[in-house]
Amino acid sequence: MRQMKVDKLGIDLLTHDPVVILKDIEGKRYLPILIGPFEATAIALALEGTQAPRPLSHDLMKSILETLEAKLVQVVVHDIKDSTFYARLVIETDGETEEIDARPSDAIALALRVGAPIYVSDKIALEETVYDKKAEAEEKQRFQKFIEELKPSDFRD
Amino acid sequence: MRQMKVDKLGIDLLTHDPVVILKDIEGKRYLPILIGPFEATAIALALEGTQAPRPLSHDLMKSILETLEAKLVQVVVHDIKDSTFYARLVIETDGETEEIDARPSDAIALALRVGAPIYVSDKIALEETVYDKKAEAEEKQRFQKFIEELKPSDFRD
Repeated sequence: MRQMKVDKLGIDLLTHDPVVILKDIEGKRYLPILIGPFEATAIALALEGTQAPRPLSHDLMKSILETLEAKLVQVVVHDIKDSTFYARLVIETDGETEEIDARPSDAIALALRVGAPIYVSDKIALEETVYDKKAEAEEKQRFQKFIEELKPSDFRD
Repeated sequence: MRQMKVDKLGIDLLTHDPVVILKDIEGKRYLPILIGPFEATAIALALEGTQAPRPLSHDLMKSILETLEAKLVQVVVHDIKDSTFYARLVIETDGETEEIDARPSDAIALALRVGAPIYVSDKIALEETVYDKKAEAEEKQRFQKFIEELKPSDFRD
């Protein structure tokens, strides 16, 4: 499994649907997932840290977990079938671990609200993530800068 | 408290927002509640008994309750402040009863999915429900029909 973070929300140029973009911790590979407009709003509010005046659906989910003394340990985007990503919530309750099938959008909107980490399975990491050429270019640039700024004194031990 | 049923969904003529219309069991008083378009869809699917291919947010809420062995006993629309209705979920877990603050739309979408009854508080029943003139007219008509169809034999004991 590979841990990811929500990088940002975007719009798919082809379908004009909202997209949530996950990025791995090193920021080198990203995973765009098409989601619904409501779920995009739920994720956007969590990213902004904006609290709606009344609990939205994912705030209510969080309340339900808290009230039932269950902890969202992690969410995992583990599979894709017919271009649809599959996720699961991993929940700890009474010392037991339970897994619940979910859409990635719901899983991410909930994970952001409770501060749970987001993972993708090795399958998804290998087959579905995209290499970020910009990140690669930036890294080359950073390395170039590092080389250029080297002073003879850096080689002394 | 007064038990209500979801009568139908409509559109508010003034704001063009979706409305869920609750009706009491006798069908004499109704309560229109303005809701969001996503919640309206969640309620519509439950009314139709349509199962989405992947769990929607309220299907996931239902899964969470089931996995955590908690039962939604009832939902109550109990208050209104600044034209916003307030509801709560009443949940039974391990023999204890817990109450969770919710929007009426989420509460209703969830209640329909698990077959939990929907109540309104006396305050809401008294102050916010509207008398259904059509139901009254229909009842008058039914009574008229009943009277007209009475036969002398109906008065024998």
